Amino acid sequence: MAESVPCTFLITGCNRGIGLELVKQLLAKPNPPEKVFATCRSPGTSQSQELTNLAAQHPNLSVIKLETTDPASVAEAMKEVEKQLKGCGLNVLINNAGICKNNTLESVDEKDLLNAFTTNVVGPMLVTKAFLPLLKKAAQENPQGKMSWTRAAVINMSTMGASIEKTSETFLCWPFVSYRCSKTALNMLTRCQALGYMKDGILCTAIYPGWVQTDMGGPEAPLTVDQSVSGMLQVLCNLSEKHNGIFVDWEGKTIPW
Amino acid sequence: MAESVPCTFLITGCNRGIGLELVKQLLAKPNPPEKVFATCRSPGTSQSQELTNLAAQHPNLSVIKLETTDPASVAEAMKEVEKQLKGCGLNVLINNAGICKNNTLESVDEKDLLNAFTTNVVGPMLVTKAFLPLLKKAAQENPQGKMSWTRAAVINMSTMGASIEKTSETFLCWPFVSYRCSKTALNMLTRCQALGYMKDGILCTAIYPGWVQTDMGGPEAPLTVDQSVSGMLQVLCNLSEKHNGIFVDWEGKTIPW
Repeated sequence: MAESVPCTFLITGCNRGIGLELVKQLLAKPNPPEKVFATCRSPGTSQSQELTNLAAQHPNLSVIKLETTDPASVAEAMKEVEKQLKGCGLNVLINNAGICKNNTLESVDEKDLLNAFTTNVVGPMLVTKAFLPLLKKAAQENPQGKMSWTRAAVINMSTMGASIEKTSETFLCWPFVSYRCSKTALNMLTRCQALGYMKDGILCTAIYPGWVQTDMGGPEAPLTVDQSVSGMLQVLCNLSEKHNGIFVDWEGKTIPW
Repeated sequence: MAESVPCTFLITGCNRGIGLELVKQLLAKPNPPEKVFATCRSPGTSQSQELTNLAAQHPNLSVIKLETTDPASVAEAMKEVEKQLKGCGLNVLINNAGICKNNTLESVDEKDLLNAFTTNVVGPMLVTKAFLPLLKKAAQENPQGKMSWTRAAVINMSTMGASIEKTSETFLCWPFVSYRCSKTALNMLTRCQALGYMKDGILCTAIYPGWVQTDMGGPEAPLTVDQSVSGMLQVLCNLSEKHNGIFVDWEGKTIPW
């Protein structure tokens, strides 16, 4: 039996890396979603060529322009998605867009911190808030359903580096101060969203994709993007109420805060 | 025997509340510090009248103008403090200045998040970075010493609301989304500082002052500012290597991340 796949997805930061691979693997499923909204900042440019090609082959893929940190852009994307959903809800929002810069306690500056917070925390907050009515609608389409990603879910892309507990194992060889601080704040936001949206039947989870061979992860990373994304999709399709507001990796292991 | 008190302190946000009380209690000790640098944004105005009055009575108190989020102001304050220290180091930096706004997942916006991050994370990062040479100097004045606040320490003022683990106990009646996210990020920064500055002999700890009757805490808070600050000073004077990079409350109890 094919695993159950939600009807509708919105994934941010899809022009490359993990976002693009999520879109590819969802579309390649034997029972693909009815609609995948793949967002990026500049659709139709050379930076999103792969996404454009995919959309030409898959009528269930819509490429949506979205600058996650700009409230006006978020509102416009929401309007477009709502129109295309024709009264249906949105089952899954994956806040994947993020930035990462390597800096140390010596080199980090106020711009690094604010840039990281803006993209990695403010963005997910704005996008989740804007799409909440569509997520609620999806949850209400199945009012007796248990929490699961086929009902309604917000997935925030986090990192092992966000674990305050694990910092002593990772900091000296992998400082990334601004990235860490922002993703730790995103973990807190995830926990708030999990508690706040529980009453609406929306599951919220932070996931660590692993150290992946992407532009962000670099070539020495141990995981291919295919391995990471297929692992995450397996984890996501098994999420239930007990995973609401927790932090797991691409193999489903819980990471301490 | 009187407890040992460090020679030199710099405390941010001293015009009121916990910062002001820290200054008062340190100056009132039987063996007060040789120098307390109490910073605030607007010295000499009505908002910092109590601090001005205290300085008139205590020659070991210097009131220093400091806008913690402005690199130029931080650099200027550092120059002034360095001049007044006449070649001595700074034993204790207390990053106390902070802002708090009550907002929910519904009401929080990008300005709330960025304001909170700026004051509660960027500020402590900038101030610690700027004063690091003076903290290092203090640690080097006692090269064989164990880690303690009489040697060199950075104390970051955190909150129970920053504990991701404890969010389920506090969120529904006390949302404070932007404050929480920023202070969780500050906890991560503290942990990074603890690991990064350990080699320099500088102890870094996050402390929760309790829910205190201040302008920020409101009148219904269970602790007086006197109780909170005397508790914290007791905790701080007992800090040792094992408290480096941890998160404790005003009674010395460890709080989970």
